[in-house]
Amino acid sequence: MYKTTKKKIHILLHPELGETKWDKILNGFIITLIILNVIAVFLETEQPLLEHYGKFFRVFDLVSVIIFSIEYVLRLWSANHDPRYGHSFFGRLKYIFSLDAMIDLLAILPFYIHIAVGLDLRVLRLLRLLRFLRLFRLTSYMKSAKLVRDVFAKRANELKLSLVLILFLIIIASSLLYFAEHQAQPRVFSSIPASIWWAVVTVTSVGYGDMVPITILGKILSGIVSLCGLALLALPAGIITAGFLEETRKMKHNGNHVCPHCGGDLDHHEH
Amino acid sequence: MYKTTKKKIHILLHPELGETKWDKILNGFIITLIILNVIAVFLETEQPLLEHYGKFFRVFDLVSVIIFSIEYVLRLWSANHDPRYGHSFFGRLKYIFSLDAMIDLLAILPFYIHIAVGLDLRVLRLLRLLRFLRLFRLTSYMKSAKLVRDVFAKRANELKLSLVLILFLIIIASSLLYFAEHQAQPRVFSSIPASIWWAVVTVTSVGYGDMVPITILGKILSGIVSLCGLALLALPAGIITAGFLEETRKMKHNGNHVCPHCGGDLDHHEH
Amino acid sequence: MYKTTKKKIHILLHPELGETKWDKILNGFIITLIILNVIAVFLETEQPLLEHYGKFFRVFDLVSVIIFSIEYVLRLWSANHDPRYGHSFFGRLKYIFSLDAMIDLLAILPFYIHIAVGLDLRVLRLLRLLRFLRLFRLTSYMKSAKLVRDVFAKRANELKLSLVLILFLIIIASSLLYFAEHQAQPRVFSSIPASIWWAVVTVTSVGYGDMVPITILGKILSGIVSLCGLALLALPAGIITAGFLEETRKMKHNGNHVCPHCGGDLDHHEH
Amino acid sequence: MYKTTKKKIHILLHPELGETKWDKILNGFIITLIILNVIAVFLETEQPLLEHYGKFFRVFDLVSVIIFSIEYVLRLWSANHDPRYGHSFFGRLKYIFSLDAMIDLLAILPFYIHIAVGLDLRVLRLLRLLRFLRLFRLTSYMKSAKLVRDVFAKRANELKLSLVLILFLIIIASSLLYFAEHQAQPRVFSSIPASIWWAVVTVTSVGYGDMVPITILGKILSGIVSLCGLALLALPAGIITAGFLEETRKMKHNGNHVCPHCGGDLDHHEH
Repeated sequence: MYKTTKKKIHILLHPELGETKWDKILNGFIITLIILNVIAVFLETEQPLLEHYGKFFRVFDLVSVIIFSIEYVLRLWSANHDPRYGHSFFGRLKYIFSLDAMIDLLAILPFYIHIAVGLDLRVLRLLRLLRFLRLFRLTSYMKSAKLVRDVFAKRANELKLSLVLILFLIIIASSLLYFAEHQAQPRVFSSIPASIWWAVVTVTSVGYGDMVPITILGKILSGIVSLCGLALLALPAGIITAGFLEETRKMKHNGNHVCPHCGGDLDHHEH
Repeated sequence: MYKTTKKKIHILLHPELGETKWDKILNGFIITLIILNVIAVFLETEQPLLEHYGKFFRVFDLVSVIIFSIEYVLRLWSANHDPRYGHSFFGRLKYIFSLDAMIDLLAILPFYIHIAVGLDLRVLRLLRLLRFLRLFRLTSYMKSAKLVRDVFAKRANELKLSLVLILFLIIIASSLLYFAEHQAQPRVFSSIPASIWWAVVTVTSVGYGDMVPITILGKILSGIVSLCGLALLALPAGIITAGFLEETRKMKHNGNHVCPHCGGDLDHHEH
Repeated sequence: MYKTTKKKIHILLHPELGETKWDKILNGFIITLIILNVIAVFLETEQPLLEHYGKFFRVFDLVSVIIFSIEYVLRLWSANHDPRYGHSFFGRLKYIFSLDAMIDLLAILPFYIHIAVGLDLRVLRLLRLLRFLRLFRLTSYMKSAKLVRDVFAKRANELKLSLVLILFLIIIASSLLYFAEHQAQPRVFSSIPASIWWAVVTVTSVGYGDMVPITILGKILSGIVSLCGLALLALPAGIITAGFLEETRKMKHNGNHVCPHCGGDLDHHEH
Repeated sequence: MYKTTKKKIHILLHPELGETKWDKILNGFIITLIILNVIAVFLETEQPLLEHYGKFFRVFDLVSVIIFSIEYVLRLWSANHDPRYGHSFFGRLKYIFSLDAMIDLLAILPFYIHIAVGLDLRVLRLLRLLRFLRLFRLTSYMKSAKLVRDVFAKRANELKLSLVLILFLIIIASSLLYFAEHQAQPRVFSSIPASIWWAVVTVTSVGYGDMVPITILGKILSGIVSLCGLALLALPAGIITAGFLEETRKMKHNGNHVCPHCGGDLDHHEH
């Protein structure tokens, strides 16, 4: 019976293993709690809100940490149900140092450090935002996430190259603009590293307007840079689109990709 | 004869059912009236125009409401010609609460509330803009609208995922920039919710320039965020493009992908 | 011999009819002259340049007009070599009112009006920019121009729909932002037509920063609008890409698109 | 043995010829040195850094130049191992004037000019940035670089056309905006060349906000220009995407588009 409880709890905490009604409710509750926690941390940075509802925020944080702590202990206890963490001691130790468990721990640890040491560092409080990372795990349940990951993985080389080309453009553009504008605006284009900021803002076509060339040469160079930027940014867009098309085509063909000569399956062939 | 009139009026008010000359003229008149109404509401918000041409605007509104009211009553009366709203009383009642009829009613109701209660709320006047929503129905006549809808519907999961990823980027970016910039610009990056505005403006590459990082760390993070933003925005573009290609290919293949010489199916040929 | 001269001149002035060495030289000369004329008009708007080099600009304009006038007369004279303008009088008259000839005439007319009437309107001088339109004709020689035109023509309906959707977004966005921001910034978001300018700048992600929402509601709406804008702008990009792919595929298949059953040509079949 | 040493050094300096352990280490060292040099030049433009670490920068530059000089001499000496530069004198002379060697020389020359002539021009110091160009050679080792180059090369005509169309739009837009805005903002839209800057910033959707139309006509024109800009920018994006798809498809088809069961060609099958 002890083992069955552990198994039940393990499944309960891992909605990807099986879907019962309780499973969904618990999972939905945890997700809601995480989102509320993130919203709480966000709102706490608004000074007037913190002053008026400070007590409410503290109580909410306390309740959240208790729930997350119980969840963490239960996960740790039921971890060795998973064959990867099979050993009753070393398995659990291994589980503690897994990425998932580390994120879970980091999200509740600041609270206990605060209690133990008495420190109430603002930075420590903001560590609670790490709870948000747990939501990332959820995207892995989405079927389309696999597709997106596949596209990015298979086109990694092309995407890397376009990143390199964009970085090259940024470096060359910032050097050129420094030459063109440093004399005219010594305080704005004060150095090449300062011009890099201009180059990034221009190449990505964000264009805040805090650094703008005023010389004729600077404007001509800037125009060429922004046009080149657009051409280079069309590169990753094209790569990703091509990747998507291929993946979706592959998906469809799975099964009915048959040779018109002999009718053999073209995808799985073992002789 | 009574029934025939109803049928005629029903068809007259539903240009998608049949296209006669009168049909087209009436429909064109209603569309023009709606567009003129929207332009009128827009221009009324210009103070000098309202002062000079106030009377003209009021007369135009009165005439429009009368026409729309007549149209509404005729639609309601002829509604039970449609088998969906067949019953002479309950059918019409059902029609009143259909989305189309609700929009039509909301567009003329403010006028009657104004007369009945004597209220002349500015907000109420602006409700007339709802008339504009009626134009949306028109796009459904366009053949290409179906194509666009299909692409968005079939790729809904991927598009949802990219929206989730963009939201994740915005949330992470605003937290990071708050840390980097709050000390240097406590009034600009005053809180994380305030930084979200910066993140949205940067990720979408709009870049108004009202919030700009000034610290080195903030600028580096901002550069990374805008590059990630561009990569993520290439995602929906790629998804939509891939969707379009597939739909247009499917359209072509439907039915006429047959060899015109021998009639053999060009997609599946087994010997 | 008279006829041969006319024919020779006709061919000389229409480089698309045949390519001789003289042809290319003359054509290159005319193109260079047009470009120089455009540059001259552009530079004349710079006050200091006009003051210093005013005489040079006038001489250059005089020479250009003489050359363009000679070209125009020769074109008119040799026009009836073209069977479309065959008749010696009515053919030439028809040619005068053809789009090409009208552009040519408009480009030199301002000069003669100036001499005849003595008017030296600045606007008239700028009409010389119409000479620039003659360069458009050149793009039609490019083979890829046909491809681009085909893509835009065949996808006209989808592109029209995405334009309609973008216009809808702009109209809805400007109304909503007017409501959200008018109270807080009565001078910036003074009316809905004024807000349209904000909507255009935001949806196209240009983001000048002259109109920026400051209320929370305005910022939330603005974020949604810019994300919707990006999704809608991905639409024409996707449509154009899909169009390009299909056109290039069609080009390639021309000739070797053969039915695998009977070997018949799948593109051109007349029974 | 002399020849073997030369061969070994030649291979050592040309990592694309063969990959040994020493090769990789040396190559990695040179790349790191180049990157550090670029960073050094960038940081030197920051006045406070130059003042504090001036001596360090000079020493680092001296060491770098010595290493690059040794490398250059060794490359020159071993150049005639390459059959293209086979002759012991003329081959090496030919090598000196090859693009690669010129870049290498330009990167170290400023230092020697400085020593020889005693000149310490700031511009001369910045010539060291040319060392950065050597990194470009590295991208040619990337397999995906060939793909990107192929796409751009095969679609050169279409890309050229879209560049021409974008330039046309910029020229027309700047002329129109000059007319619309010159009266209202004579200092901002001072001339057509000044308006070109506005047009470039708007068409590329960078939107710095230093030049913004304020008249109604200017705003309407600006809206049309930015929408046209987006449509034209979708063109190169579509062209590049289509190119990518075709190249990747071709790659796949090359050689292995054969039925694995019967060996029949899956592209061309005639019975």
